[in-house]
Parts: sequence; C-alpha cells; structure tokens
Amino acid sequence: MNALLRARYRLTLAPGEDAGLRARQLAREQTVEIPEGVVAPEVEARALGRVEGVEPLGGGRFLATVAFPLAATGGELTQLLNVLWGNVSLWSGVRLESVAWPPELLARFGGPARGAAGLRALSGAEPGRALLATALKPLGLSVRELARRAAEGALGGVDLVKDDHGLADQEWAPFRERVLACQEHVARANRATGGATLYAPNLTGPVDRLAERLETLAEAGCRAALVAPMLLGLDAVRGLAESAGVALLAHPSFAGPLAGGDRGLAPELLFGDLFRLAGADAVIFPNAAGRFPYTLEDCLALEARLAAPMGALRPAALMLGGGIDAAKLESWIPRYGPDTIYLIGGSLYARGAVREAVRELAGVVRRVAPRGAA
Amino acid sequence: MNALLRARYRLTLAPGEDAGLRARQLAREQTVEIPEGVVAPEVEARALGRVEGVEPLGGGRFLATVAFPLAATGGELTQLLNVLWGNVSLWSGVRLESVAWPPELLARFGGPARGAAGLRALSGAEPGRALLATALKPLGLSVRELARRAAEGALGGVDLVKDDHGLADQEWAPFRERVLACQEHVARANRATGGATLYAPNLTGPVDRLAERLETLAEAGCRAALVAPMLLGLDAVRGLAESAGVALLAHPSFAGPLAGGDRGLAPELLFGDLFRLAGADAVIFPNAAGRFPYTLEDCLALEARLAAPMGALRPAALMLGGGIDAAKLESWIPRYGPDTIYLIGGSLYARGAVREAVRELAGVVRRVAPRGAA
Repeated sequence: MNALLRARYRLTLAPGEDAGLRARQLAREQTVEIPEGVVAPEVEARALGRVEGVEPLGGGRFLATVAFPLAATGGELTQLLNVLWGNVSLWSGVRLESVAWPPELLARFGGPARGAAGLRALSGAEPGRALLATALKPLGLSVRELARRAAEGALGGVDLVKDDHGLADQEWAPFRERVLACQEHVARANRATGGATLYAPNLTGPVDRLAERLETLAEAGCRAALVAPMLLGLDAVRGLAESAGVALLAHPSFAGPLAGGDRGLAPELLFGDLFRLAGADAVIFPNAAGRFPYTLEDCLALEARLAAPMGALRPAALMLGGGIDAAKLESWIPRYGPDTIYLIGGSLYARGAVREAVRELAGVVRRVAPRGAA
Repeated sequence: MNALLRARYRLTLAPGEDAGLRARQLAREQTVEIPEGVVAPEVEARALGRVEGVEPLGGGRFLATVAFPLAATGGELTQLLNVLWGNVSLWSGVRLESVAWPPELLARFGGPARGAAGLRALSGAEPGRALLATALKPLGLSVRELARRAAEGALGGVDLVKDDHGLADQEWAPFRERVLACQEHVARANRATGGATLYAPNLTGPVDRLAERLETLAEAGCRAALVAPMLLGLDAVRGLAESAGVALLAHPSFAGPLAGGDRGLAPELLFGDLFRLAGADAVIFPNAAGRFPYTLEDCLALEARLAAPMGALRPAALMLGGGIDAAKLESWIPRYGPDTIYLIGGSLYARGAVREAVRELAGVVRRVAPRGAA
C-alpha cells in the first residue's frame, strides 16, 4: 500500500497562529505522534503524514490538505478513523472537511450491501419515485399496539415501516415479541394488498446479543433493520453489512456534536461518506424545517455524498425525518432526487386514522415528481 | 423498573426562547418523540420524560433537570445512551452535564473488572504512589524496534507499556507478531528485574477479528489492552470488560467534539461516568499544558468522577498523556491523587537512551508524593 490518503481539514486559528505549522503538527499528531527528529528519517519517510497545501479561506480560517500513507490505516475502518480523526478530534478549531478515497482502500470495503436501488427493490417501489416510510412509536406502547400501527401503515401502502430508534428491549414491548408480531402483521397486510412493505426493527443493542437478535429477524423474515452507528460503533455496522443479510438504515443518534461547527467532521462526510463506507443502505437525517437545526443545504450536501461515485460502492438512500410535516410532503419531493425516503411519524399519528393518512401520503409520493425525474 | 433516571442539561438559548418549553421539548424528544396529545395519557404517563426544574444560570443559559423513566432504557447501555443523548445530540445549545445514576441501573453493569486498584496490583506498583507508563511508538517502526523499546521500558522499571493507539495491523508491524514479540520482551525483562511491567497492546480493530486478537493476547500472556470506545462502540467495551479477561485502558480517540462546549456531554461525564460504566479500568486523557486544549480543572473533574461513589463500580484510574514533558513529571504528581498514571511518550524518546530515561522517571514516581498521600 504505497498509495496516499488525502484529507482536507479546515483550521480555525487565533490571530497570529501559523497555519502551516498547525497543519504540520496535525499531520504529525495523526501519524507518528512524536516530536520531529526523534525517530529515524526512514521511519518518518514511510509513516508521517505530509502537508500538501494550506490555503487561506479568510476570517482566520485555512484549508489544509494532508496526505497520509494509506499503509498507516492497515486497511481497517477503526484505524482509518484514527488516522483521519483520532487525536485531532481533541484539538480546538479543526474540522475534517473531505477525504479523497483511494481506490485501493475502497476495494477493501463492501459498502452498502443493497444500497438505494436494493432498498427500492425490496420494498417494491416503482423506479423514479420517492419512497414513504413511517416510524413505529412512541416508546411505551405495547407490542399489540405497535403491531397494529405497523399493519395500518402497510395496509395504507407505505414502502417502509421502521421501529423508532428508542424501541429496544423494554418491558413495555420486548424485542423478540415485538419483532415477530410487527413483521407478521406487515406480512399479512402485504398478502392482503399485494404490496411488499418492509419492516425494519431496531437492531441496536448489546453487542453480545446481536447474534441472537439477528436470529429473531431471520425467524420473523425481516429484510431490513435500524442501526445507530455511533452507539454500535461504525465498524460493527460494517460487520453487519457484510454478514447480517438485512438492509441497514443508519440513525444519527448520539452523533450530533461530531458533525458540523468549527470542530468536528463535515456532516456530509460523517453521515455520507463514512456511514456509506460502513455499509448503510439508507442514512436517516433530519430534514430542514423540522425539529432539528439543519438546513436544506446540509441535506442536499448529504444527498450528494450518498450518491457520488465512490469506487464500486453502491449509492445509499437519504431518509429524511426529524419532524417532516405530512401536509408539506408534496412541497419537499421536488427538492430532492428520487432515491429519497420520507420518514413521517408524529404528524401522521396526529392525523388519527393511520391507514387513511398513509394512503393519502402514498398517493403523494406516486404523484409528485422528484427533482430530476423524467 | 419504576425508578427514575435524572439528568441535568445545560441549555444555551437565543434571546426570547422559553427555557421551560425547550426543556419539555427535550424530555419529549428523548422519550415518546411524538407531539403532545397524540398518544393515550397512560402511555405518556409511563414513558415520557418529565422536567423537574429549570434554573437560570445567567447569560442565556439554564440548567434543566429531567427525570426519565428508567424502564425506557431497558437496562441496556445502547438505549441508555439514546435516552440521555440520542436525538438531542442533534440539537444546538444542549449540553448533558450530569446524571444521577439509579442503583437499579448500576446493578446491571459490572463496570471496571479490575479498576485502579487492580491495575496497580497487576503492575506490582506499591500503594500510595503514582504510576508511570510509556507508549510504544511511532507508527512505522518494525516489530523488532517496538519490542526493543518495550523491553527498555520494562528494564527501566516502568509500570505499564502501552501500544500507541495508532498501532493496529499495519504491514510495518502486524498485530499478532507485534503482540507476541512485545509481550515476550517485557516478560523477559520482568524476569531479569523481578518487576511486573504490564504490556497493553491496542486491541481496537475490526469487530469480527476481536475474538482472534483476544486469543493472541491470551497466547502471549497479556493482562491489559488498549481500546478506543468511540471507535469500537461503548457497548463493545462493556462486552470486553465482562468477558475479555484483560484490564482495559480506554483511549479518547474520535471523541473530542462529543465532550465540552455548548453542545455535547460534559467531558467528565463522557470520559468519566460513561467510560467507567462501560468498564474502563483506566481512562486516558490529555493532561493540561500538553498538546491538547484541556485545563487542570478539566483533568481534576475527570479524576473526581473516576473515583466518585458509583454503586458497586470500582474506581478507575486516570491516565494522563497527550504530551507530558518528562522534565515536569515531578511538578504534576502533587496535583493529582495516587491513582494517576502518567503516560510519557515523545519527550521520553527525545531523551535518547530509553532505559535510563525511564529509570529516572520511575525514581520520580517513587519519590514524589501524590496529592493526599500520607
């Protein structure tokens, strides 16, 4: 592996700080992590990151391009994260903006096992239209009530029903009982409608119970699952994508401060490139104008990264949630491409009759053309 | 589980925002995540978080106390993190300050399998004195060179030699070969000195290779390992603490933006309470005045949380690193308690003869009394 891994960092410096020096310190921190001159030159020659350029952005900000020896990653996701954002995550004023992914590295990762197209096929949605999803919630409902909601969604023609990320193994609706009942209700509804609504239970849970929970998913016949990469670990998601046999919807729980701001990763890098590299078939992100402070620009940047060429990795779908008002679905669809999944939860349940509300929205995704659709 | 899980959040609001309303929105977001009035009152009664108080802190800041039904966590670490810091991690201006841990919850977690006292016993360090550690680095050295450094450290009388967090399975020093060689060199040095220097290889790596790597550790006779909880997942660390049979040193890689600032967790909560709950026997943190922007106050707050009463959980050791100048070790020891491990890397290697440099520092930790020592 003589290839280079190039990353761009935005440095926000105090007046008088030297951007070139800071960039060289960063390249050192992320690799040999030892003062200059302490180690033999041939070791630095093979292991040290190199600053390739530093451009001023104005306002005390600079964009530094650092080339790391790809061999420093050992081809492992955990160590790749260390090289890109390990120790400098603890610095102030450093933001990882983008990474140029070397083909040699991408070839080591399978990425999404199904991707946006695979999810569409699994849910039986016609090509060229947006997809509709609902969330089973709230926490506190019984298995019976959740299963009934799942069935109503499927009967209404939703493409995908997912567990709320807060449904785990609580006494109110234990994991195994919930998964079996919800999948059975969705399957029965599918038989009645001729549809193929997908049910995605929340798989996020104790690492030593994942195998048992995957068996429950297989027993139930689930073809998708929800995972929270920052709770399970990104590499655990990679492991699941390679072996679990279900499509993975990745939830941004716990990740907020890691993305955005002067210190962190660019949101489209974390939720886009990295979640996709780990194997997310869809990435859940709060839509603009909902309950979360993200803009349309943030969402479009993420959408672009999920679809951008990335070696042989499949494009992943953007699943927009976080308080999309059912009444405004129609106005959102033309702003995003067809591989967008609209996750409508609270505002749907607020309408009362779930099946009818879903049917109306299922009509909207079939009728309104996404951006760029023919 | 009718107990309550109380958490305190610091809200930073824009002028005119209503702190009470924001706190109620937070309690709802973290539990039922559905608008008021949509679900039956008995479901909200059992599942919804409740705001118990909101106090102004001045400057647009407020401290909100929220009581969550403990049952919402299902007793699982992943879901506990969801309840405390899942979706609100995506909000602006919310910082999780502290958690009052219910005994019922703590009883479900083993915490550190050995803790600070166990680590001291494993390394043969006398009670009442600080511990000394070195890091094997840099990345890029061969197995032979790393093993020689490990032996020099042990011969010099260091208590603990750890892999740099960037040593993974690179071609320069493959995991298995490195671990076997370094442990063998340390063991041989221990036989020569009568000491018990611990060697802690970096276990962080692909989840599907952890079992194989643990076998290598067992084969080598290692009694400690380095893990990066934000790369492996906190729950993976919990799983390792319960079953791996080695003491765990937790590294803060990747975690920076999650801790501190107006948006994030208080550093002493993330690296203190949560790392300890997950089972870290020692927590690595950058000392004040090193290469990282943390203060003595930050370090002391973390030290306090690692030692504070927390059910039956063992106290964990604070391992200070991040550029401690060997020449200043003597001045740091009286500022921290005896369960502190000083990790000295770069400045030690800069001194040239490792064994002699370590011997001098090993003399310092034996001679200088920690804070509060008799």
